[in-house]
Amino acid sequence: MAEFLSPLVTIDVVILTLREGHLQVLLMRRGAEPFAGSWALPGGYIHPEEDADLDAAARRVLHAKTGVRTPFMEQLQAFGDGQRDPRGWTATFAYFALVASDAMVLKEGANAEEVAWWQIKGKQVETPLAFDHARIVAAAVSRLRSKVEYTSLPAHLLPPKFTLPDLQKVYEQILGRQMDKSAFRKRMAEAAFLEPVTGEKRPASNRPAQLYRIKRGRGTIFFDRTI
Amino acid sequence: MAEFLSPLVTIDVVILTLREGHLQVLLMRRGAEPFAGSWALPGGYIHPEEDADLDAAARRVLHAKTGVRTPFMEQLQAFGDGQRDPRGWTATFAYFALVASDAMVLKEGANAEEVAWWQIKGKQVETPLAFDHARIVAAAVSRLRSKVEYTSLPAHLLPPKFTLPDLQKVYEQILGRQMDKSAFRKRMAEAAFLEPVTGEKRPASNRPAQLYRIKRGRGTIFFDRTI
Repeated sequence: MAEFLSPLVTIDVVILTLREGHLQVLLMRRGAEPFAGSWALPGGYIHPEEDADLDAAARRVLHAKTGVRTPFMEQLQAFGDGQRDPRGWTATFAYFALVASDAMVLKEGANAEEVAWWQIKGKQVETPLAFDHARIVAAAVSRLRSKVEYTSLPAHLLPPKFTLPDLQKVYEQILGRQMDKSAFRKRMAEAAFLEPVTGEKRPASNRPAQLYRIKRGRGTIFFDRTI
Repeated sequence: MAEFLSPLVTIDVVILTLREGHLQVLLMRRGAEPFAGSWALPGGYIHPEEDADLDAAARRVLHAKTGVRTPFMEQLQAFGDGQRDPRGWTATFAYFALVASDAMVLKEGANAEEVAWWQIKGKQVETPLAFDHARIVAAAVSRLRSKVEYTSLPAHLLPPKFTLPDLQKVYEQILGRQMDKSAFRKRMAEAAFLEPVTGEKRPASNRPAQLYRIKRGRGTIFFDRTI
């Protein structure tokens, strides 16, 4: 019954951030075979003695590579087939995380020679990736963009206090399109997840910009229609 | 390094249908331990020699239990932890399928004594389920309802030709709420995925009802806002 053996499974995390005005993904250059020398998503095996569940395993991988513990993270999709790994039929539980780039310290992994941010162009980076990681990155970028159109998620990429132009810029950078300023302000007011920081304004060239923060206790909220 | 062994993984399929005006889920009574005698989702192991990928494994499980090959099916979520199976740390790739109930023949599985449709009440069935299958059923019902609000998915539960009242009834049964007839007709017209079957009407008590079909080549389409 060798063909009914449980396949090898891994965890991979697509860690996305905004840096220098662009959506970027964290990649590591592999030191070991297979795909030695290629760039790949950070990932690893499940540690049954240590990981309470799949989400905990993904959080452990994220923390080990970035030092970040509490970003937005969710399960993306599982990918499994007989082609993605030359060692045989394998499956990976892919997660995606969205982190503020100033919150992290990059760390090299045991299996990696190098770690770096790569700019997303379209839904890809400009280097071939190990395994089926190119399709996993593409799936994560699609998921992020579809979520961003319907949620307050981008607010979690900003510092605790920010202006509406700051927030609009984050939406625009992730979605890759410009938005109308007054329509954007109207949608944010309707969604009602922000509150002004009383008495605090940021000096600006013409008039001071009001600072806002996410209302207490509000996680990511879902809009009833697209932004 | 025993703690780094790959965990046992399975496939489970939440097969949903509309029968007798209610959303129902296919369950099998387990013949073997663990949870012998309890109802459970149909599922099994991946067969690396036979299954090209995870989706193919889920289609094989679905076909083996129902005889149906081409329903709406997609990956739901992976569930994995040290508690769900008394045998140790396991994970399952859960899928959900939506099938027309007249298209299938129920078959018993090797590990099952009995197979039956169970009515969904809220997001549960009225019997304790094996493993963590109750939470998987709840997740599938949530996913189905959120999809139905934004897609033409329910049209695939009907025979090839149907009336608009037939379609409205399917939406109402899945969502568990009544809908306004004229607003429903307006949304269907805007979504533009149906076409009238020329010259064919179904006799009705007052005037014959126009028959419609899904436009050729249209799979499930996504609406730009909720139904």
